[in-house]
Amino acid sequence: MNDIPVLYCVYCGFKGEREKYYWKCPACGSPLEFEYEGYWNPSGIGLSRYSTCLPIPPSKFLGEGNTPLVEVEYKGVKVKFKLEYLNPSGSFKDRGTLLALELASRLGYRRVVEDTSGNTGISIAMYSRVYGLKATIVMPRYAPRGKKVLVKALGANVIETPSRGDAAIKVLGLLGEDVYYVAHTWSPLYIEGAKTIAYESHEQGFNGNIVIAPVGSGGLFLGLYRGFKELRAWGLVKEVPRFIAVEGVSVTPLYSKLYGEVKVKGDSSLADGIMVPSPPRLNELVNAVKETKGLVVLVDNNDIVKAMKELYEYGFIVEPTSATPYACLKKLIEGGIVKKDDEVLIPLTGSGLKTIDIIEKYVSSN
Amino acid sequence: MNDIPVLYCVYCGFKGEREKYYWKCPACGSPLEFEYEGYWNPSGIGLSRYSTCLPIPPSKFLGEGNTPLVEVEYKGVKVKFKLEYLNPSGSFKDRGTLLALELASRLGYRRVVEDTSGNTGISIAMYSRVYGLKATIVMPRYAPRGKKVLVKALGANVIETPSRGDAAIKVLGLLGEDVYYVAHTWSPLYIEGAKTIAYESHEQGFNGNIVIAPVGSGGLFLGLYRGFKELRAWGLVKEVPRFIAVEGVSVTPLYSKLYGEVKVKGDSSLADGIMVPSPPRLNELVNAVKETKGLVVLVDNNDIVKAMKELYEYGFIVEPTSATPYACLKKLIEGGIVKKDDEVLIPLTGSGLKTIDIIEKYVSSN
Repeated sequence: MNDIPVLYCVYCGFKGEREKYYWKCPACGSPLEFEYEGYWNPSGIGLSRYSTCLPIPPSKFLGEGNTPLVEVEYKGVKVKFKLEYLNPSGSFKDRGTLLALELASRLGYRRVVEDTSGNTGISIAMYSRVYGLKATIVMPRYAPRGKKVLVKALGANVIETPSRGDAAIKVLGLLGEDVYYVAHTWSPLYIEGAKTIAYESHEQGFNGNIVIAPVGSGGLFLGLYRGFKELRAWGLVKEVPRFIAVEGVSVTPLYSKLYGEVKVKGDSSLADGIMVPSPPRLNELVNAVKETKGLVVLVDNNDIVKAMKELYEYGFIVEPTSATPYACLKKLIEGGIVKKDDEVLIPLTGSGLKTIDIIEKYVSSN
Repeated sequence: MNDIPVLYCVYCGFKGEREKYYWKCPACGSPLEFEYEGYWNPSGIGLSRYSTCLPIPPSKFLGEGNTPLVEVEYKGVKVKFKLEYLNPSGSFKDRGTLLALELASRLGYRRVVEDTSGNTGISIAMYSRVYGLKATIVMPRYAPRGKKVLVKALGANVIETPSRGDAAIKVLGLLGEDVYYVAHTWSPLYIEGAKTIAYESHEQGFNGNIVIAPVGSGGLFLGLYRGFKELRAWGLVKEVPRFIAVEGVSVTPLYSKLYGEVKVKGDSSLADGIMVPSPPRLNELVNAVKETKGLVVLVDNNDIVKAMKELYEYGFIVEPTSATPYACLKKLIEGGIVKKDDEVLIPLTGSGLKTIDIIEKYVSSN
C-alpha cells in the first residue's frame, strides 16, 4: 500500500499532517489538494487502471469505471456520450466515492457522514458497506424517492432536511473526531475520481475539441478539466478541449460570477443534481472556463424535458440532470457556436432508473 | 455487411429460405438455429468484439457488453459476479436484443412485437428506437411498475395481460407479414447474445469449475453453456464448467422434467423474471445440466430476500430474480456440494433500480 500524500492549501499555503484528513483548510477555509505527482501508466481494470495517476489508489473494485463511450451524429456534429450512469450505483459519483472511502478506511475511520441531493448518497452508502463503514446521509426531502430507498437499502441512515442547503448545515452538527465527513463538494478525491473519465474517453478514442458538462459543485467539470490538462502535460493530447459548463437557470453561481446576475427568471428544478448555490470551488470553475475559452450556459425545465426525450430516443435511460449538457449542446448548435465537424464529449451522469416517477411524468406520456 | 445465415431445425431437419426469419420451425414447431461456423478473433468493443463468433454481427453500439466481473470470497469459495445489470437497459437481455433487432432491421421489418415479464420489454423498446422500429410489448399486469414506465418512456406501446401466459397468447394475435416477432424465449439470437457473457468472463480471468444461473426461458443458461462449449472447442478452456440451474419453487419445468414433481409447495413470486412455465428449449436445458453433471436447485421468496440483502451488502444493486443464483450458492455450500477452492461464476442479471418498490419493501426495511 502506498503512502497517503499530505493535503495542502493552494490559497494560504497550509500543509496538513501526514496520515491526517481535513475536509477543508483549517487555516483559511478553502478546499484542499493532495501533494503528489502522477504519471501515465494505465494497466488493469476499473480505476486501479490509473493507480499511478491517483493520490489514493483504490484497493477495492465494485465494477466502477470503464463506462461505454457511444457516438451519435447530431446535425453534423460528432457527439460522444460517456455513459457514466452505467457505473454500479448509477452515477459517475462512484469514481470519487471509491477514492474517498478508500482513504477513510485506510485512516481507520468507522463512521462516515455526508450531505447530498441523492446520487452521492447512494454511492457512499454502497461503498461504505463494502469498506465496513457506517454511513449517515443527510438529504433534502425533495430528493427522488428512488434515491432515498436505495440509500436505505444499502444500509445507511437517512436524515431528511427541507432543502439542500439545510442538509449542508445539518451535517456539520454530526461531525466529530471519529467521523469522516466525505464532503464531496470540497474533496479533491471527487475531482481525482472524475478525471478518470477524461483518461478513459481518451483511451476510447475521443479526440475532440469541446467538453460539455453540468456544474453543481463542479467535481465532474473540474475532474474532466484536470484529466485533460494532465493528458496534455504527458503529451497524450495536443490541446485541452473547450470547457462548457451547464447550470440550471434557478441556481447559477458560476454564470453569475462570470457574467453578472441572471435577468430572465426560470425554473430548473428538474435538475436536482446541480442545485448547489455556493460551490466551494467556484474560483477553480471560473478559471477552467476562462483558461479553455469556455462558456456557461443556462437551461430550464423545458430545455431539460425536450433534451431528455431525445436522449431516450437514442436509447439513453438517464435522469433529468443528465440531460442538461445535451440541452446545452442543442442551444449551442442553434446559436452557431458548436459547428459541423466539431467533436463533443458529453458525460451522461446519472441513471433514469432511479427517477421512475419523473420519467413517467415527463417522458412516458409521449 | 455479412450475409445472414439460414435458420434450420435441429429436430426435424427443416431448412429455411435465405433472408427469411421464422420465430420457430414451421414444420415441427421446435426452436431454430442459425447455420454458421464461428471462430475466435476478439477485437474491438461491445458485442462487435465477438463478430466472428456471431451469426448476425451487430452494426450498432449502445454500450452493451463488457460488464464488470467482480470477485468476492464467500466461505472460502471464489465467487465471480458478472454485473450484467450494468448493461444499458439494466439487464443481460440487451445482448440478445441487439442481435435480434439487428436482424429485424436488416430484413427490412418496420414493426416488432414481444411478450415479456419486463426486462426484455425495456431492452426491445430501447433498441427498437435506435433501429427505427415501432415496438409493441405485451406484459403481465404484475410486472414491476418501473419496468412498464420505462418501456413507455422508450416509445413502445404496452399491452397488459393478467399473466405471463396470457401475454404469450395475446402476442400471437398481433403477428402478421410485416411484423417481426422477437420471441426471445425461442430465438437463437438470445442464446448467441448471452454466450458473449462466457467469452467476456473468460477474457476477464474466470477459469472456474461452476456456473450458477437462473432459468426462466433458459436463454442465459444455454448461452453461457454454448459460450463455454465453444471456448473449449477452440482450445481456450480445458473443461466446460458444471452448470447449475436455479428455478423458483412455484414454476419448475426443468426441475420437474429431471427429477419429477415438486413435493414441497412454496412461493417464488419475487423472481418475476423466471416465471416461465413451458420454456421452448426445455430439452436443451435438460441436456446442458446432464452433459455437465449439473443440478437444478429451487429457491423460494425467503431464500431470495435473504440473498438479496446480502448482495446489497456487497454493493450489488440487483432485482430479486438476480438474487436466485446466489441463494442457490448458499444452499450448495451448506449442503457441501460447492466447496472451498471451487471457483463459481454468477451472472447478476437485472438492475434493482427498476424495482424500487420491492427493494423498499424487502431490503430498505433492514
